[in-house]
Amino acid sequence: MRCVILGGGGFLGRHIGRAMAGEGAEVWSVDRSLLAATVAPWLAGEVQADCFDLSAWWDMVGGADVIVHLASSTVPATASEDPIGDVQANLVGTLRLLHDLRGKAARPRLLFASSGGAVYGRPVSVPLSEEHLTMPMGAYGATKLAIEHHLRIEEAQYGLPIRILRLSNPYGEWQQPHGVQGVIAVFAHRALHSTPVDVWGDGSVVRDFVYAADVGRAFVAAARHQGESRIFNVGGGLGTSVNDILVTLERLLGRTVERRVFPARSFDPPVNVLDIRRAQDELKWKPEMAFGEGVAKAVDWLRTVA
Amino acid sequence: MRCVILGGGGFLGRHIGRAMAGEGAEVWSVDRSLLAATVAPWLAGEVQADCFDLSAWWDMVGGADVIVHLASSTVPATASEDPIGDVQANLVGTLRLLHDLRGKAARPRLLFASSGGAVYGRPVSVPLSEEHLTMPMGAYGATKLAIEHHLRIEEAQYGLPIRILRLSNPYGEWQQPHGVQGVIAVFAHRALHSTPVDVWGDGSVVRDFVYAADVGRAFVAAARHQGESRIFNVGGGLGTSVNDILVTLERLLGRTVERRVFPARSFDPPVNVLDIRRAQDELKWKPEMAFGEGVAKAVDWLRTVA
Repeated sequence: MRCVILGGGGFLGRHIGRAMAGEGAEVWSVDRSLLAATVAPWLAGEVQADCFDLSAWWDMVGGADVIVHLASSTVPATASEDPIGDVQANLVGTLRLLHDLRGKAARPRLLFASSGGAVYGRPVSVPLSEEHLTMPMGAYGATKLAIEHHLRIEEAQYGLPIRILRLSNPYGEWQQPHGVQGVIAVFAHRALHSTPVDVWGDGSVVRDFVYAADVGRAFVAAARHQGESRIFNVGGGLGTSVNDILVTLERLLGRTVERRVFPARSFDPPVNVLDIRRAQDELKWKPEMAFGEGVAKAVDWLRTVA
Repeated sequence: MRCVILGGGGFLGRHIGRAMAGEGAEVWSVDRSLLAATVAPWLAGEVQADCFDLSAWWDMVGGADVIVHLASSTVPATASEDPIGDVQANLVGTLRLLHDLRGKAARPRLLFASSGGAVYGRPVSVPLSEEHLTMPMGAYGATKLAIEHHLRIEEAQYGLPIRILRLSNPYGEWQQPHGVQGVIAVFAHRALHSTPVDVWGDGSVVRDFVYAADVGRAFVAAARHQGESRIFNVGGGLGTSVNDILVTLERLLGRTVERRVFPARSFDPPVNVLDIRRAQDELKWKPEMAFGEGVAKAVDWLRTVA
């Protein structure tokens, strides 16, 4: 099985690539920049290209059995700042990719990383099942959802097999601590360097965290899945508050983490926890890493970076 | 109340403009081409412009209290043929409009014509309420739905008041018989000229039809609505099959309408009927035209065109 990861050089791309290679896949990465071979020894090869430009990579990798679509130019905050740019890059980009795939004899399976944190919006009930209303509260979620719909339509009209994985908040080694996403990496890095962390509101906001290597195993399972379901929540299935994260870090580091407190943000739903029973039942997948242990691994990795 | 209709020269735009003016609104049309004043005597004025280019019309009309957004460059078939073009024109166009409206001190109410025939997809249960799952089966519905989400987000983040009207299949005077939409106008025109009509499948496919002047009254009600709901189904609330349409036309014309029968199309859901109770309860609106009478009016108008 040849697996091409669009965005294979990033945090999640590395975990998914390693998991796929561990199951015997020939793994390629297509990304804007190349990795050092020592960083990603599981890769059969890499192409430096625009992920959405099929002509730039399809022949170089020799076609694909599975495409893992992690390519995204935005995070929630940047999508809200520039919703047109978000649509142009990510929705139109994905539509270009789908259009060009129609011209290939092969029908690779496309696995799309959607967002369980963004597509549902304010929860009517938790945990959020895949059947929950999808009412995204920002442009990022609206675009992820529009891509989901177009993928479903593409399979119905042109037979491209697809699976959609709605991820909660992945964390773990390789997550960069200087971004605007990835609260665990950001907090852990600041705690390691005795810099205060920023908390909006009273820290009671609850989110679902999933260890990135567990996400990698979910993509492996989705690549093999036989069955009718197309959308799977992939999360820890447990609620963890911002305060829980800080307590976990303080316990690991043996010292107090200083907070800077800002007013609560109206666009943060108070709770988001995914119902992962469908993935358990149909993908035969469940998260294996305990939260405290996963955070310890993330912290250990962060000790090795600046 | 100044009401600006984006796409005010079209079939629906004329009915909505007439209804708004009948309730005392100052009605302007923005459209790609101008109407003869004799065709639309209710208009206070017209601007020939790109509807999505606010700078091209806002100052000329002196601002707006209500914007009726009917602007669309596609129908379901053309959107499926060119989903990227559909996104670029309609989704990106609407996002441009929203962005530029943020720069105005006024917060006009924006009424958007969405599609009750396209956003729900294959019905899980009928009649379709506004709470039904939204799983569009084509690019046209996916774009309408993405616009709906962005409008909801715009109101939450920037306070633009919005109402979304999910229309079933409008019919009536001014509906052109040479398009790819508007089965009643197409069938009636062919029947008048003794040309066979095209039927896909056995004619049992059921749709919801709503007389366009009733749609006009629904927009008037939505312009005045006070309440929490943002999405309203606007339809006849009754199921009418393709065969029912033909029987109605044969009765009106007093002769047989010849059919050409083609295989059923897999992308046509067998039934689509809207639940209009929310509009009845909250907009105090209900359709008033009986189907047979409305079709007679459409036929009478079609006798006057080539």
